[in-house]
Amino acid sequence: MHKYGKRVKISIIGFGAVGQGVAAVVKDIPFIEVTAIADSKGVAITPDIEEVLNRKRVGLPISNSNLSAIDVIMKVDHDITVEVTPTNIIDGEPGLMHIREALKHGRNVVTSNKGPLVKRFNELMQLASNYKVMLRYEATVGGAMPMINLVQEALTGSKVRNIVGVFNGTCNYILTRMTEEGLDYNHVLSEAQDMGIAEADPTYDVMGIDTASKVVILANSVFKQNVTLDDVDITGIVKITADALRLAKERSYSVKLIGDVKGLKVSPMMVPAGHPLSVGGTLNAASIMTDNAGEITVTGKGAGSIETASAILGDIISIYKELEGVDDLHC
Amino acid sequence: MHKYGKRVKISIIGFGAVGQGVAAVVKDIPFIEVTAIADSKGVAITPDIEEVLNRKRVGLPISNSNLSAIDVIMKVDHDITVEVTPTNIIDGEPGLMHIREALKHGRNVVTSNKGPLVKRFNELMQLASNYKVMLRYEATVGGAMPMINLVQEALTGSKVRNIVGVFNGTCNYILTRMTEEGLDYNHVLSEAQDMGIAEADPTYDVMGIDTASKVVILANSVFKQNVTLDDVDITGIVKITADALRLAKERSYSVKLIGDVKGLKVSPMMVPAGHPLSVGGTLNAASIMTDNAGEITVTGKGAGSIETASAILGDIISIYKELEGVDDLHC
Repeated sequence: MHKYGKRVKISIIGFGAVGQGVAAVVKDIPFIEVTAIADSKGVAITPDIEEVLNRKRVGLPISNSNLSAIDVIMKVDHDITVEVTPTNIIDGEPGLMHIREALKHGRNVVTSNKGPLVKRFNELMQLASNYKVMLRYEATVGGAMPMINLVQEALTGSKVRNIVGVFNGTCNYILTRMTEEGLDYNHVLSEAQDMGIAEADPTYDVMGIDTASKVVILANSVFKQNVTLDDVDITGIVKITADALRLAKERSYSVKLIGDVKGLKVSPMMVPAGHPLSVGGTLNAASIMTDNAGEITVTGKGAGSIETASAILGDIISIYKELEGVDDLHC
Repeated sequence: MHKYGKRVKISIIGFGAVGQGVAAVVKDIPFIEVTAIADSKGVAITPDIEEVLNRKRVGLPISNSNLSAIDVIMKVDHDITVEVTPTNIIDGEPGLMHIREALKHGRNVVTSNKGPLVKRFNELMQLASNYKVMLRYEATVGGAMPMINLVQEALTGSKVRNIVGVFNGTCNYILTRMTEEGLDYNHVLSEAQDMGIAEADPTYDVMGIDTASKVVILANSVFKQNVTLDDVDITGIVKITADALRLAKERSYSVKLIGDVKGLKVSPMMVPAGHPLSVGGTLNAASIMTDNAGEITVTGKGAGSIETASAILGDIISIYKELEGVDDLHC
């Protein structure tokens, strides 16, 4: 279908922080052409990206058509649908419908949306296989940390036995600040909300649901399970006291909200100082237990619109290479 | 040349801890056939791997031929030469000769030997390109940590600006123990030698030369430089006092021997607690500074024969996939 030198056509479905980040990072890449951008209010066809970003920034509508997101997916010519609408773990919508239709219409899909993958991982992978297209989701798991690629491409010399990690930057920030300053949970949560590190409604993060979502996606993708959030034993960080953290610190431990992928468990745990998972601030970290390579830990920013956009760009480039049969792309 | 389902033929040149580790991990992999194993005393042709490993273990010669290592490279049919003789940073030999001849005879090469790459990186890569074969060296840099693959395959969505890291487990062990126990350098060095963590002659590690070798290989491979050890500003750990480490610890810092790849510098530096490079014991860690993905850190065992063998196996598999045009190999 494609020849080397051709451009790959993408649509961006969802135009919040991540969608805008994607537009910003792809706009100067010569082999990527954005054929449509959809937000919740309308669709810009063959958009001038700079202009659309500016309109969005000042609150103007981006639409220049009477199409909807689903119209773009079904009717507008493109090779890769970039689905970056907000995560909804209740029913996965509207992302689930977007991804299903995109795959059925022969589009490859790159997504940062955990909802559809948490609800219907195996169905979507099967659909991609049936329609001979690719579904990539690096950004759903570790933000900028290339977890999935690392396991699938870089660690081919070892079998992966388990993955455990600190998968939520908001929780890690709260626990780090409570430990360092001896402050209580509510105080630090307010501070984190003021700084934009925690959402106005922090439930999803602090109850451990975001961490559990990542556990589900890794369990299904790396360990070929067939599980959903219902299968995960989840304890959040809301009941942790400053006293408990102080006691841990006195013994050179820190407390982290740990997701255990094989164990299907999310809970606060003590980690010794100097351990690779003992990272502070908003950092994420994931330890990959292997048979031959021992324990490999990756640490990085788990969230942030540019970091997430960078993971999405990595997936777009990897699909582009597959489509073109190129293996030595420098950009 | 190869079809899917065919076996890839390898020779193992060098049969110390790493070579034996490679033999042990590849012996049960159905698509890998070992056609020859060479140690410093002789060559086993079409070896029974189990038997050769047993003979080596009890000190018996492995040779069943009158060939030498270089004869194997030039005359024995194989696709991949696995060059795992000991690192020699003075002139790179005998590894340099082995790798040159292997490439000139159309063999792909996988190596854990830093010597040839530190001395002649660009010459060898050019030779591989001229003869249309691959030269892979994941094991030279981070042992089990898939640094090169991570940068070249997994982080395609970002430009890499710099890499800084803790690249030597022996130094890290010595500094960690000195800090934890308040012991002096000579005491901890003796302990590390007793435990097999430091060599009888620890010069190469504690003077920073091993770290600098990794800096050179990363500078040449990731940043397309043309540098050797002479270009690196090197300070080791031998002059660090227990007092200095205690003072740092009181301020919640630890001291690590840091290699700075873009800066071409190796020196002890203070790292704050909770920082991803603040890993203890014999661990290695490398922080990859990127434009979009922020700072990604990989932590793992930098050495160990099975860990190194696992990195070599990863390289063999990746060459096998290229030769076969397979992209979805599960083993």
